[in-house]
Amino acid sequence: DNGRPVISSGDGRFSMAFRVRFQADFAGFMQDSPASLPAGATKDLASGAVIRRGFFGVEGKAFNDFWYEFRYNGGGTDAEGFGMSIARVNYNGIPNFRLSAGVIEPVFMLEGTTSSGQLMFLERPEIDNIAADVFGAGDSRRGVELTYQKAGVFKSDDNLVLSVAFTGNTTGTGTDHATGTDEKTQLLGRASYRFWNDGVSNASIGASGATIISQGGNSTTGFVNLQDRPEIRVSPTRLISTGGLNARHASMYAFDAAANIENFYLGGEYTNFQVDRLANGAQAGDSPSFSGFYVEGSWVLTGEPKTYTVSSQNNEVGGFGAPKVANPFSLSGESWGAWELVARYSDTNLNWNKNLAATATSQSGINGGDERIVDLGLNWYLNNNVKLQVHDLIVNVKRQSGVAGTQIGQDLNIVGIRLQFTN
Amino acid sequence: DNGRPVISSGDGRFSMAFRVRFQADFAGFMQDSPASLPAGATKDLASGAVIRRGFFGVEGKAFNDFWYEFRYNGGGTDAEGFGMSIARVNYNGIPNFRLSAGVIEPVFMLEGTTSSGQLMFLERPEIDNIAADVFGAGDSRRGVELTYQKAGVFKSDDNLVLSVAFTGNTTGTGTDHATGTDEKTQLLGRASYRFWNDGVSNASIGASGATIISQGGNSTTGFVNLQDRPEIRVSPTRLISTGGLNARHASMYAFDAAANIENFYLGGEYTNFQVDRLANGAQAGDSPSFSGFYVEGSWVLTGEPKTYTVSSQNNEVGGFGAPKVANPFSLSGESWGAWELVARYSDTNLNWNKNLAATATSQSGINGGDERIVDLGLNWYLNNNVKLQVHDLIVNVKRQSGVAGTQIGQDLNIVGIRLQFTN
Amino acid sequence: DNGRPVISSGDGRFSMAFRVRFQADFAGFMQDSPASLPAGATKDLASGAVIRRGFFGVEGKAFNDFWYEFRYNGGGTDAEGFGMSIARVNYNGIPNFRLSAGVIEPVFMLEGTTSSGQLMFLERPEIDNIAADVFGAGDSRRGVELTYQKAGVFKSDDNLVLSVAFTGNTTGTGTDHATGTDEKTQLLGRASYRFWNDGVSNASIGASGATIISQGGNSTTGFVNLQDRPEIRVSPTRLISTGGLNARHASMYAFDAAANIENFYLGGEYTNFQVDRLANGAQAGDSPSFSGFYVEGSWVLTGEPKTYTVSSQNNEVGGFGAPKVANPFSLSGESWGAWELVARYSDTNLNWNKNLAATATSQSGINGGDERIVDLGLNWYLNNNVKLQVHDLIVNVKRQSGVAGTQIGQDLNIVGIRLQFTN
Repeated sequence: DNGRPVISSGDGRFSMAFRVRFQADFAGFMQDSPASLPAGATKDLASGAVIRRGFFGVEGKAFNDFWYEFRYNGGGTDAEGFGMSIARVNYNGIPNFRLSAGVIEPVFMLEGTTSSGQLMFLERPEIDNIAADVFGAGDSRRGVELTYQKAGVFKSDDNLVLSVAFTGNTTGTGTDHATGTDEKTQLLGRASYRFWNDGVSNASIGASGATIISQGGNSTTGFVNLQDRPEIRVSPTRLISTGGLNARHASMYAFDAAANIENFYLGGEYTNFQVDRLANGAQAGDSPSFSGFYVEGSWVLTGEPKTYTVSSQNNEVGGFGAPKVANPFSLSGESWGAWELVARYSDTNLNWNKNLAATATSQSGINGGDERIVDLGLNWYLNNNVKLQVHDLIVNVKRQSGVAGTQIGQDLNIVGIRLQFTN
Repeated sequence: DNGRPVISSGDGRFSMAFRVRFQADFAGFMQDSPASLPAGATKDLASGAVIRRGFFGVEGKAFNDFWYEFRYNGGGTDAEGFGMSIARVNYNGIPNFRLSAGVIEPVFMLEGTTSSGQLMFLERPEIDNIAADVFGAGDSRRGVELTYQKAGVFKSDDNLVLSVAFTGNTTGTGTDHATGTDEKTQLLGRASYRFWNDGVSNASIGASGATIISQGGNSTTGFVNLQDRPEIRVSPTRLISTGGLNARHASMYAFDAAANIENFYLGGEYTNFQVDRLANGAQAGDSPSFSGFYVEGSWVLTGEPKTYTVSSQNNEVGGFGAPKVANPFSLSGESWGAWELVARYSDTNLNWNKNLAATATSQSGINGGDERIVDLGLNWYLNNNVKLQVHDLIVNVKRQSGVAGTQIGQDLNIVGIRLQFTN
Repeated sequence: DNGRPVISSGDGRFSMAFRVRFQADFAGFMQDSPASLPAGATKDLASGAVIRRGFFGVEGKAFNDFWYEFRYNGGGTDAEGFGMSIARVNYNGIPNFRLSAGVIEPVFMLEGTTSSGQLMFLERPEIDNIAADVFGAGDSRRGVELTYQKAGVFKSDDNLVLSVAFTGNTTGTGTDHATGTDEKTQLLGRASYRFWNDGVSNASIGASGATIISQGGNSTTGFVNLQDRPEIRVSPTRLISTGGLNARHASMYAFDAAANIENFYLGGEYTNFQVDRLANGAQAGDSPSFSGFYVEGSWVLTGEPKTYTVSSQNNEVGGFGAPKVANPFSLSGESWGAWELVARYSDTNLNWNKNLAATATSQSGINGGDERIVDLGLNWYLNNNVKLQVHDLIVNVKRQSGVAGTQIGQDLNIVGIRLQFTN
């Protein structure tokens, strides 16, 4: 009931579904006037609109046991992500196992198991984006993945997902095979367990972990950069960033929990990143670490519950998706779609020993900044195809210009609107 | 009867049509030899071929009252326009009204209501292209639009279209959200009225207007640039151009009239542009204005009439399209498709006070050039999918190198050929 | 039986098929250590993965006698080839003739008649790629083509193909219409004749030839460059290259023969290139020539024969394609798909008078390098949609740094893996 046409062969061994998704985003940035912001702070962020995603894709079954998905992103030029988003082949011939290869989007972290078409907010939380960028998840990702999924493992209402992926770079990064630069590789995985459900409500816990196997290349400068935009992507400017850290290895772990009780939802996740900096001349190597978390909640005013996805052919496994609209918007029918109130608080701290000065034998601390965002939003699902989101993001950035430096952070407010069509 | 496959749901609430359009253009430029052209004139324009457009798209109905269209342009790299062409959602739930948002192509100016797949000539007239570029129309345009359309308003054979759009930049312009550069915004609209029709023949008048609301950014240099290529786009070179004018506001209006009497068609449009230049130091601001017009006619030798489009889900509303082929080309059937002779005269004058020198308190005149083009063409519609166009463009450019400068214009001749497939 | 959905009109005059093809390639380069390679040799080639092709396309019949094909390559950003791959219209209204125009892939050389989805190896042989690049074949090619094909011309089991194309540049090369640079044009063609078949086995011979008609542009430097990568494209580095030769004309010819006896296949081709260098001051023009050949064989262990293509709407005419899988892979059915062992030896010699020094009146010899590759591969066709290829390439490059220069060649080994989905 969502306008997604499927062509199937008579014997059911083959199918092709046609998928469309586009998201038109607007952001209005409300900052203090440039004159009143401290020197070094980011001033006058650009308000405007972008096409965040513009997907066209086909997917389906081939010879029963195989599944293919091909998805091209024609939007995103404004911001990022233009090009081949998914080009995967899955083999499903062994019960409960799925083997994927090609351009995949790995199963990774809590909101990484929610489709970009079903997000409660305009963007995934910063720690999820940082982890995906640096540790080899997200879409457009070359790699192979093995996933195990089974419902009713220990008791009748549970669901277990174990997934591990070996990935390279994102595709479309044309310069990454110059002489001397082998492909960057990562190992990452996620385990999640739904320990309770009654058919409508669900409760689950999960853990994700990742490590960089090889950075590729011979360079020792500026490899690992933890950074993100303020949970909306109209402006390309990132308010927090560690800058490139001279490291050839890094690792991370995350824990999450989420549950819906009928039309209420509550979830959260905590992440810790550790980067192993190389020695810099006489200055020894060290291991800066960073952390972040978020808590998010949702209340579907019109009563529909969020949906828990038991299994799938993609990354949406063991996660929570959008509510299914009970009464599609229609003036003549006097039905109004589904309405949802959502809130999220996230804190991403990219500082490490922020006032530690370098010595002859040790490196200095890191002032990537600490960003806290309160996101309050109203989501209107007109039907299962059309969604309108109006959000307000209250952003607080605390960041020093450097070790023992001046404050270059700021408070700002962002109004974000998204119109989405997806089938 | 045009090979456009549509998949519909059983209850008719959903549909998806698959659209393809590609245009292969060739242009041969015949100029005077470089040695005999004046210094400063554009010499040796490059003959050759481009893929002018390469569209693949899907469109259809969702939940009865909604319409989606997603169109990607994979051609055009040779010249321009590569990327997301259309990504719109329309709401049609209120009779006679249509509300659109996303990446749209606004209803604007006379030939702006003709699909690029149904143009009589290879390109729309210069004044339409200049207006679309500078005042926020054309495809790939982020924006929202409200359109009212009703047939039989004042009398049984009429048709009224009123449309207004608020638009931003074209999508795919990746650099336009750098810090300090808010989105450029425009307000534009069109009213058209078919005052007579007898079922085959039609007569209509129209008016279009637009204004730049905000130029975005803080810069005061080079914002508004009126320019176009000589009604064919194989060579990227523009023979007339005002150059960037230091202006934060500009406005324009246009009037048009068009009619078909059975298989004859005649139409024309006049446009006036006004640009409000900022003061330049002690030199005061001023308001240069420019104008242009065209007259065009068509005779379908095989007798088919042009079609007037009463309403649609896109920009083709209240305008004239291509004839429907009565007898598709077939050697065995001895039928020859439809043949059409067309002619257009356009005059686009981008000069303003061309010999006015700057003083201490006033700015100088503008020598953008005056271009006159006679376009004579033969269009062969082999069937409703395949079209071959052979055109000859007689171009006269009068342009000074600057205030009281030397003549850098020229006469040239261009042969243009287009092969088109569209469904 | 390959999951390619087709929508047809009731009367059979129209159809649309949906095509998907993607190839994920991995290459591991095993070279001598940088320290042990001679100065000037290419060191430390980058191992990694790319998406070699990512095609989505539609094709079909329109008004019986016409055929359209539209194919977009969304992969290949990693290496090359991103953009419009095919946008053609064919007219088939005259028996045995096919007239094509738009963006085509001409019928040219032996492996040029094999679809990229049905290649035995990861890449076509070097001489085929060099010829396609320099002489106007390959996909993304603007041009027109006339093809004659008839079976049973001289005897009941034969098949004759004659094809000639006039082509320009590849599309997507946006800079090639700057002032002064007319389009580069080529004339090329191929004749092939299957002189024997018994329904399963086939034997054919062929010849291809091409000439550059016009180089476009006024420049006299660096037009013609014969070069290629070592039959795998993960690394963009080419180990052999003549560099740009100052020539406005060049021509080539090739001969080939191929046959399959049931599930065994043997084929080969020889090519000669001649480049007409312009005079360089007092140094006279000359005509360096280069040549290359390959021999290739295949044994389908599971017994399926390769398929000979009698006629088609594209370049796959008069050539050999992949075997059709008799028993698709299925664990439950204990069937294992088709397995094929393949080998190829190619020798591409881009040297010409390599120790000839320039004099006052003559130009120097050319040291483009001589590359010999033994490619040993195992192809696993899981079914008609999914293929996995594992190949080992033993590469020997002999190349001087210049006339009477030092040796900068090397021996290396490359492991190449491809996962392909195609329908």
